[in-house]
Amino acid sequence: MQDFFNTLELADKYLVNDKDVPEDIFNKLSKVTAEGGYIGMAQINPIVGDIEYNAKKIAKYIKFAEKIGLEAVVFPETALMGYPIEDTIDRHPIIVAENVKWLMQIAKLAKNTIAIVGFIEPRLKKQGKKYFNSVVVMQNGEIKGIVRKSLLPTYSEFNDYRYVEPSSVTGIQPADTLCTGECIKSESSLYNGYGISICEDCWNDGEFFERTLYKIDPTEELAKEQPKLFINCSASPTRAKKEQLKHNMLSFISKKYKKPFIYVNQVGAIDNMSFDGTSRVYGKDGELIARAKSFEEQFLIVNPYKNIGKIYPLTNGLDKSLTEQKVFTLEYESDLERTYKTIIQGIRDYFKKCGFKRAVLGLSGGLDSTVCAVLMADAIGKENVFGISMPSNITSKESKSDAELLAHNLGINFTEAPIKDMINTTTVCLNNLFSTVEKKWQDRYTKSFTPDNIQARSRAMFLWGISNEFPSCIPIATSDKSELYMGYATINGDMSGGFAPIADVPKTKLFAFARWLNKNREEKNAIPEAVILKKPGAELAIDPKTNKPLIAEDALMPYEFLDEIIWRIENKNETYNDFINTEFVYEKHNEVTFEQKIEWLNKFYRRMSTALYKWSILPPSIIVEARSINKCDYRQPITSSRINYKGASEEYIIESLGLN
Amino acid sequence: MQDFFNTLELADKYLVNDKDVPEDIFNKLSKVTAEGGYIGMAQINPIVGDIEYNAKKIAKYIKFAEKIGLEAVVFPETALMGYPIEDTIDRHPIIVAENVKWLMQIAKLAKNTIAIVGFIEPRLKKQGKKYFNSVVVMQNGEIKGIVRKSLLPTYSEFNDYRYVEPSSVTGIQPADTLCTGECIKSESSLYNGYGISICEDCWNDGEFFERTLYKIDPTEELAKEQPKLFINCSASPTRAKKEQLKHNMLSFISKKYKKPFIYVNQVGAIDNMSFDGTSRVYGKDGELIARAKSFEEQFLIVNPYKNIGKIYPLTNGLDKSLTEQKVFTLEYESDLERTYKTIIQGIRDYFKKCGFKRAVLGLSGGLDSTVCAVLMADAIGKENVFGISMPSNITSKESKSDAELLAHNLGINFTEAPIKDMINTTTVCLNNLFSTVEKKWQDRYTKSFTPDNIQARSRAMFLWGISNEFPSCIPIATSDKSELYMGYATINGDMSGGFAPIADVPKTKLFAFARWLNKNREEKNAIPEAVILKKPGAELAIDPKTNKPLIAEDALMPYEFLDEIIWRIENKNETYNDFINTEFVYEKHNEVTFEQKIEWLNKFYRRMSTALYKWSILPPSIIVEARSINKCDYRQPITSSRINYKGASEEYIIESLGLN
Repeated sequence: MQDFFNTLELADKYLVNDKDVPEDIFNKLSKVTAEGGYIGMAQINPIVGDIEYNAKKIAKYIKFAEKIGLEAVVFPETALMGYPIEDTIDRHPIIVAENVKWLMQIAKLAKNTIAIVGFIEPRLKKQGKKYFNSVVVMQNGEIKGIVRKSLLPTYSEFNDYRYVEPSSVTGIQPADTLCTGECIKSESSLYNGYGISICEDCWNDGEFFERTLYKIDPTEELAKEQPKLFINCSASPTRAKKEQLKHNMLSFISKKYKKPFIYVNQVGAIDNMSFDGTSRVYGKDGELIARAKSFEEQFLIVNPYKNIGKIYPLTNGLDKSLTEQKVFTLEYESDLERTYKTIIQGIRDYFKKCGFKRAVLGLSGGLDSTVCAVLMADAIGKENVFGISMPSNITSKESKSDAELLAHNLGINFTEAPIKDMINTTTVCLNNLFSTVEKKWQDRYTKSFTPDNIQARSRAMFLWGISNEFPSCIPIATSDKSELYMGYATINGDMSGGFAPIADVPKTKLFAFARWLNKNREEKNAIPEAVILKKPGAELAIDPKTNKPLIAEDALMPYEFLDEIIWRIENKNETYNDFINTEFVYEKHNEVTFEQKIEWLNKFYRRMSTALYKWSILPPSIIVEARSINKCDYRQPITSSRINYKGASEEYIIESLGLN
Repeated sequence: MQDFFNTLELADKYLVNDKDVPEDIFNKLSKVTAEGGYIGMAQINPIVGDIEYNAKKIAKYIKFAEKIGLEAVVFPETALMGYPIEDTIDRHPIIVAENVKWLMQIAKLAKNTIAIVGFIEPRLKKQGKKYFNSVVVMQNGEIKGIVRKSLLPTYSEFNDYRYVEPSSVTGIQPADTLCTGECIKSESSLYNGYGISICEDCWNDGEFFERTLYKIDPTEELAKEQPKLFINCSASPTRAKKEQLKHNMLSFISKKYKKPFIYVNQVGAIDNMSFDGTSRVYGKDGELIARAKSFEEQFLIVNPYKNIGKIYPLTNGLDKSLTEQKVFTLEYESDLERTYKTIIQGIRDYFKKCGFKRAVLGLSGGLDSTVCAVLMADAIGKENVFGISMPSNITSKESKSDAELLAHNLGINFTEAPIKDMINTTTVCLNNLFSTVEKKWQDRYTKSFTPDNIQARSRAMFLWGISNEFPSCIPIATSDKSELYMGYATINGDMSGGFAPIADVPKTKLFAFARWLNKNREEKNAIPEAVILKKPGAELAIDPKTNKPLIAEDALMPYEFLDEIIWRIENKNETYNDFINTEFVYEKHNEVTFEQKIEWLNKFYRRMSTALYKWSILPPSIIVEARSINKCDYRQPITSSRINYKGASEEYIIESLGLN
């Protein structure tokens, strides 16, 4: 079969690039697939809401599948619309009407091959939400049946229940219920023996999960009718630790019901979500028999009845999860390839789908902007990136030379643009203004962050200026996750931009990431060693104690300590008292007094509580970690800044309520 | 009874200000309430997540109710936590544990009086979400039963199902199920004859609504046991047209089941949502027998058995809805008091709850900044507002004098700070930078928005500078809804700020609003007539055709036309073809060629599609209209900018898919 899969790879190259596949390739493939039992898995990257673009892509793969005589071809969840379309369909119902119009025509393309295509289905019923999340099964040029999603995730980045109604029926429903809003059981829940479900519908096995979210298990329902195989159409973004769970669960289900399981996932990024693809098939004993690449469009063919398939290697880090992380650790190595591909795909698709071509960013010689520059160069091409060193009086010579060396190594465009004049003018103007204001508001700070912020904002002024002056260009916000948690980023300064590539990467991981980039990119060691060795600091202020630029860890706390707090909150829901009562990794190799620890913890909660506003105006950024502060993933009211994360004692409560 | 209600108002003043109520007031009230059958409605303004603050407030009213011997006292939905707490409880479960601890102590306060208190209830069960949205019924110092919310809204500003599990049981459940996660029917669904439900639970009457969202109707379930009265604990924000619906629905339900209906609503603002309060009681024939004030904390007492209550006047505009608007109109007059109070409460609570005291804003002499200045002065006090006129070369003398006159009329602080030096320095710096960049990227725009944006960003630099230099001060973003729809606002410029008061007010409404403010505020005509009469324009660029500052309507389209498109999309889900085929109000009194109309429509969709990013970074702002672009209310992927809002013809689709 090696030959077959090599030929398929060739065909796939033509397909992905929208070229005609040569006849001899068709012939070679058909010889094998003619035996029957071969199923195509179209791991596609849709543009959300661009139905024409998605429809043409779907049509291309159906035609190909027809031509080589596949038994079926399967597409991801809501493939025709792209996932997630969110509230758009409630405000602009025309795009749902459009996706139905295109769907009806697409159905004509599926003749001998069964095509399974996801879309958004309008509901005419006067009860419930206005849409279903559905797939249609097409054959003989017509729609043969409909499967509707029953389990609607509403957590983290998912909001399905906001805009779609859950189906009360599992499996195939009659074709004549299309767009009526009815849920009706067909004689059989299967089509051609397939037990078809949509994404979350297969994530509720009560034996596999310790905690389940929903009352019904659609897979269990389908299994009652003894399907030949399960098919799941999915749109599941990558996150730290998710692949292990997915692999174990799907393998468990195949084995439990002794049926093959075909899982087809969306690939590509939509705003903050990077979908890894990694579609796969398990045999009836739970063994993996096929797996697509991650982070790439691919057309895969499998024969689930004969266990024929090709397993492409997993991106490192996706499988990290095989030994799931239970405690905080600085051992990031195994997750860095996934991190890299997740972000690169995120940047690339954001640019492509919004029509941007170029990026401009400040190069401070520090770790954040350095890693961002590497990522941008790799994602959109070095010629499309402009790095600007914008030194102030505080900027060291080394920072300037590190920035220049980095740009040189990467081959990106580079220039230096000092902000001295901007600072001088702004400072003079503001000092005049402050004196006037002070006459009315007498409590002016004796020490403020104004000088720091003038620098950061002057730089943003330059970057946004370039974005206004050159077509299809946006500035990059370089804030990292650790600093965003602490609100340690300037509004209209370094946290401002059209896109924020590393907003979900904590600082200690960025250090490991920089080393990984130096080792694993084609050009080795693009990042100057000095950038990785120096202690992070924004170079916005002088530390009066040292007379040198202030080190961020002195202003905040050791990043290692900070990142552990964040990790334990996000992954373990731990809280103030848990932190007090347990040792941090940092404490294992550093002496930390109890008072010091308390001070850091108090600082953490105080700063986090007032950072909520900054989270709310964060530019689009890719979710990387298991949990994030990305507003598509986590929402906390800004006015909740007075939460007492320490809790109150019973005595205190009794006294406060006047009960004693 | 007039006496009783006058005395109650006196008592309420003490209560709201956290003062001890004098004994003689207690005695006067008790004389009436001692007859029995009197129920207290505590329309409170919680701080979300600040459980101690909310608990003390709740305790205060329970003690008061006990002392005057009320039959019961009712609080809004999740009163102890504040609504909505959103994802916070999933990440920081400690605050749920805390709200239970406080709740257990609060129970001791309710002795003879029945207290009905909302909170977030943890669930131990391994199936479903981790929390319920519940109220407990307390009496004799203990918890007597629990009511759990069944219908979980997930649309517009609501996301209940993200974090809470729906109850499968209606009405009272046994006290010993507290925090277990079980839903169990009690012998009776009623407590003391009360049929209690939570917010959305009463919004699903199949006879009243043409379209219902849920399969069950908890009110109908409760009615089967013949309650003495219905009680609904609610947290329902104001929006255009909502009060009519609410009034009609609650009145309908009372009448349908021939039972009084007590509806207690949260008041105050939480981030983007302004809750109007307006708690009320209907008699068994659907007649209104009591109504609290809107937009104020209030403790109301009612005897629903004897139809004794006081009806406070409704804020104008809340009742506008009594003749629900079916088409777009410029007749805003009737909705302006509601608009005013909604925004004022929104600003005031955002400042109070976040700990801000002061605001600084640019005064351009234009309508947007003018209206913002008036609102800020009224919301936080004129002494806490600083208006800065920041003229450039393009700024007219009139703009400067209008700004100064406005500030003088309002009594706010005022100064002028020219941005000439900022513009000069920035322009020189940027021009140097552009020349360098142009060597690599040759396609520099021949005409760009850079000069316009430098002005807007220089101004923002001044405002954020003041906010950095003076305690508890934030800048105000003055963008209006019409211009945000068109992306006609500068990133890091006028659209940047700590709060955006009028981001949900369209421009044509702002004109009416300005006139209303001049007529209805204590100081008449604070807004100079010239500001209202002049045509809006950002004064950022000169129109080459007129040699005068560019008028916004020339850059965009007539505001009246624009606002009608927005209104029809948001309220009627209309689309391109609907607009083509129907007459706009603007067309009734202006000649508009077909080509012109097409051009405006195309411009609208083109600009809106690329404004999505700006919507995503909009500062917190108060939702005012029936629908908005506020990200707490409406979410559309930024990468959906290629949606075809016009739709495709069948022929086009057939051809595109190669079906012909």
